[in-house]
Amino acid sequence: MHNPFFKNNGPFLISEILRLISAKSLNTVVDNKVNDIKDLYSSNKSDITFFHSKKYKDLAKNTKASYCITTNSLKNDLPTTCIPLIVENVLLSVSQITAKFYPNSINDYFDQTTNFINDTEYKDKTIHGKNVLIGKNVSIGKNCKIGHNTIIEKNVSIGDNCSIGSNSIIRNSFIGNNVKILDNCVIGKHGFGFLPNRHNNLRYPHIGIVIIEENCEVGCGTTIDRGSMSNTVIGKNSYLDNQIHVAHNVKIGENSIIAAQVGIAGSSIIGSNVKIGGQSGISGHLKIGNNVEIGGGSGVIKDIPENSKVMGYPAKNIREFIRDNK
Amino acid sequence: MHNPFFKNNGPFLISEILRLISAKSLNTVVDNKVNDIKDLYSSNKSDITFFHSKKYKDLAKNTKASYCITTNSLKNDLPTTCIPLIVENVLLSVSQITAKFYPNSINDYFDQTTNFINDTEYKDKTIHGKNVLIGKNVSIGKNCKIGHNTIIEKNVSIGDNCSIGSNSIIRNSFIGNNVKILDNCVIGKHGFGFLPNRHNNLRYPHIGIVIIEENCEVGCGTTIDRGSMSNTVIGKNSYLDNQIHVAHNVKIGENSIIAAQVGIAGSSIIGSNVKIGGQSGISGHLKIGNNVEIGGGSGVIKDIPENSKVMGYPAKNIREFIRDNK
Amino acid sequence: MHNPFFKNNGPFLISEILRLISAKSLNTVVDNKVNDIKDLYSSNKSDITFFHSKKYKDLAKNTKASYCITTNSLKNDLPTTCIPLIVENVLLSVSQITAKFYPNSINDYFDQTTNFINDTEYKDKTIHGKNVLIGKNVSIGKNCKIGHNTIIEKNVSIGDNCSIGSNSIIRNSFIGNNVKILDNCVIGKHGFGFLPNRHNNLRYPHIGIVIIEENCEVGCGTTIDRGSMSNTVIGKNSYLDNQIHVAHNVKIGENSIIAAQVGIAGSSIIGSNVKIGGQSGISGHLKIGNNVEIGGGSGVIKDIPENSKVMGYPAKNIREFIRDNK
Repeated sequence: MHNPFFKNNGPFLISEILRLISAKSLNTVVDNKVNDIKDLYSSNKSDITFFHSKKYKDLAKNTKASYCITTNSLKNDLPTTCIPLIVENVLLSVSQITAKFYPNSINDYFDQTTNFINDTEYKDKTIHGKNVLIGKNVSIGKNCKIGHNTIIEKNVSIGDNCSIGSNSIIRNSFIGNNVKILDNCVIGKHGFGFLPNRHNNLRYPHIGIVIIEENCEVGCGTTIDRGSMSNTVIGKNSYLDNQIHVAHNVKIGENSIIAAQVGIAGSSIIGSNVKIGGQSGISGHLKIGNNVEIGGGSGVIKDIPENSKVMGYPAKNIREFIRDNK
Repeated sequence: MHNPFFKNNGPFLISEILRLISAKSLNTVVDNKVNDIKDLYSSNKSDITFFHSKKYKDLAKNTKASYCITTNSLKNDLPTTCIPLIVENVLLSVSQITAKFYPNSINDYFDQTTNFINDTEYKDKTIHGKNVLIGKNVSIGKNCKIGHNTIIEKNVSIGDNCSIGSNSIIRNSFIGNNVKILDNCVIGKHGFGFLPNRHNNLRYPHIGIVIIEENCEVGCGTTIDRGSMSNTVIGKNSYLDNQIHVAHNVKIGENSIIAAQVGIAGSSIIGSNVKIGGQSGISGHLKIGNNVEIGGGSGVIKDIPENSKVMGYPAKNIREFIRDNK
Repeated sequence: MHNPFFKNNGPFLISEILRLISAKSLNTVVDNKVNDIKDLYSSNKSDITFFHSKKYKDLAKNTKASYCITTNSLKNDLPTTCIPLIVENVLLSVSQITAKFYPNSINDYFDQTTNFINDTEYKDKTIHGKNVLIGKNVSIGKNCKIGHNTIIEKNVSIGDNCSIGSNSIIRNSFIGNNVKILDNCVIGKHGFGFLPNRHNNLRYPHIGIVIIEENCEVGCGTTIDRGSMSNTVIGKNSYLDNQIHVAHNVKIGENSIIAAQVGIAGSSIIGSNVKIGGQSGISGHLKIGNNVEIGGGSGVIKDIPENSKVMGYPAKNIREFIRDNK
């Protein structure tokens, strides 16, 4: 499921895109149309993609995109079917192109399209509190409860038998059946992704959404940011406690249990049946395997293989942690 | 003070309870009535209790309950006046029985019983903001202030001279005199207590309440969960800063000072005159003595004797911490 | 910019102030008028100041104040132009005097002066959501957006082109141009400053404000407390992620980037171009130099010189951290 909510203003001619980013080299002759910007893995022949770190070399070799924003030193890992577009700052150019395709994905101003629920079809289709607001392009399933002062902003799909608490705000999200979201949550806002720039940082478009699969629970005061180029996903039957922060592009597997005040930084992938103790932090771009247990207060700064138990800062094997702290 | 808010649907015949939990052994002949389910310490002759960990052996030996959910390996620690009911999963059976006695204690849907304060007796008895909601079974003392958009859900008693901020939500709580609760707090929701279960975790009943004694202050964005089998208690004149999380069954003594972003996991007992530095975490089921000082950022994973100063992760004597980090 | 919002009830005769604090010694003859209470650095000839820790010896030597609350052991560091007023507990006396000058700065009850925005001049001057409240002495610039249920309490100045999210609360703050404040924030409440006192802690006046300079962004669920004797300041183009806590009197420089769940304790000074990783904590009264990078999860308990990279708890040079954790 990819950016179902943001209107794609494309296609654009590759010549237009090149002017936008002032790409330094171009081995192309035909001025083809480009339909979308996607990551290396998801893109098709009609898309443009980007490649900014050696870490993604294997994905780059197999990309199906016809164009790729990259650097001089990385371009040789691309297949011959993909034309490299050399730029100085890959992420800046990606940001500019994404903004061209999806201009509404950059800023998260409050949703002006909302109406009081009593003025919508959901007046009688839901059990709802006072002062509930519903935005455009919202669908809510059967037998749902929505608490007082909660704002379901635009672009939200909620399944059956869900319970949303009071004072919560949701946008750009898919919520499965039987999900409980408690009070004071903010779900689906853009992540902390921007290009630092003296005097005026440049906000990164966030075209991903938040997906919360069936039977999940999200505690009070938790924030879950939507993805930038991919989605933020909470797998089936995973339970999150209060005051947790889940950053953009994070994926959490099924049946995971995450205690209060945990923070998961951008783009990390957490497996299924994972238990994370309170106040633990997971750095960005990590992979935590299935069945991992992370002790409370840990700071995880590298990948954790499946079936292991870790604790500490930096987190290490729990036996080692206990031995070192005797 | 024990579960004054949840209607007890009992008594039930012990035979009914046995059918519910499919207990494996039963040395009883008479089909007695059972009035309530309580912990080992609080239960009387007419109650059923539970015993699931050696840690509670001494309490088990002295329980006055007539029946006890337990395991084969623990049953011999019970007095002869208490009939052991052997089950595979003690907490699962306790959850099932508690749900039978208190069916309304499992889910925390938003409170549909609330009315705008201007439609209640508190319109003129309080100084209140706009859009304040008041649930059923709420009492508010003299000279109280309640901020905008705040929701006093059902089953709340607030003393005299209290100040509740804006955008806060309170339920199932006793608030003493002269208490200040600031903005965006959530107090009295169920804790993060459930029995993990593939595909559909089983929520644990929470029949305890939150008690905040007189002269306390609770900072912005703080969450205090109500207890499962006992109460969550904040002792007199204790001050909590912003963004703190206090889990279910936690007891905090008097005159304690807890800085921002601290997290206290379930069932821990904090003494009086305790100081806890910012971002510290206390694991569950611990005992922190009176007059303890815990340095900022600490992770406490074992009991701390009274009058000691600790710091670090895991927290140790502060002199040791300083020496080890020279 | 010093306490522009709280009405100064002075001047008061020095004899009145002496009676209030029961100062033990006084070498003065003339009953002068005192205009204000300020810190050692800011005070002028007509002000009273205070000096309670050797740490501020150099500032004390150069103070221009005519009177200074201090102790017997510190008084000799004051210039001869400044009359020492010896008390047992400096901060208690300062608190009492400040409360006399600024009685409205002690408690942060919800703002009763607010009106629905549709009943104010900002109905058509802003783009605003439902149920927005505006207090007294609020000014809002051109082209601003204010989300649903947000409360702009009294004493707030907002620049041009600002975006405030939904469910946020702001008071006693100066917000520059082009600032974005997301949802569920609380900005400008008093800090966690009080004098511990058995049975009834004594709240400290907070006469500072919060200043958020132009082009800043503040994430969801973040709390920024106003200063006690000075202001809390977020410098130009600094970006704060979700669930951050910034305590009273903290100054953050320009172009700094602070990731989610960071906590900065009272009176610490953070430089410009500083990067702080998620969940890090900075103890109070520290100085973090320009261009410092602090790794995620760090606990900083001492000053950090400019241009350095640190990580760990306690935070140390990052090379050392990596070496020690191999």
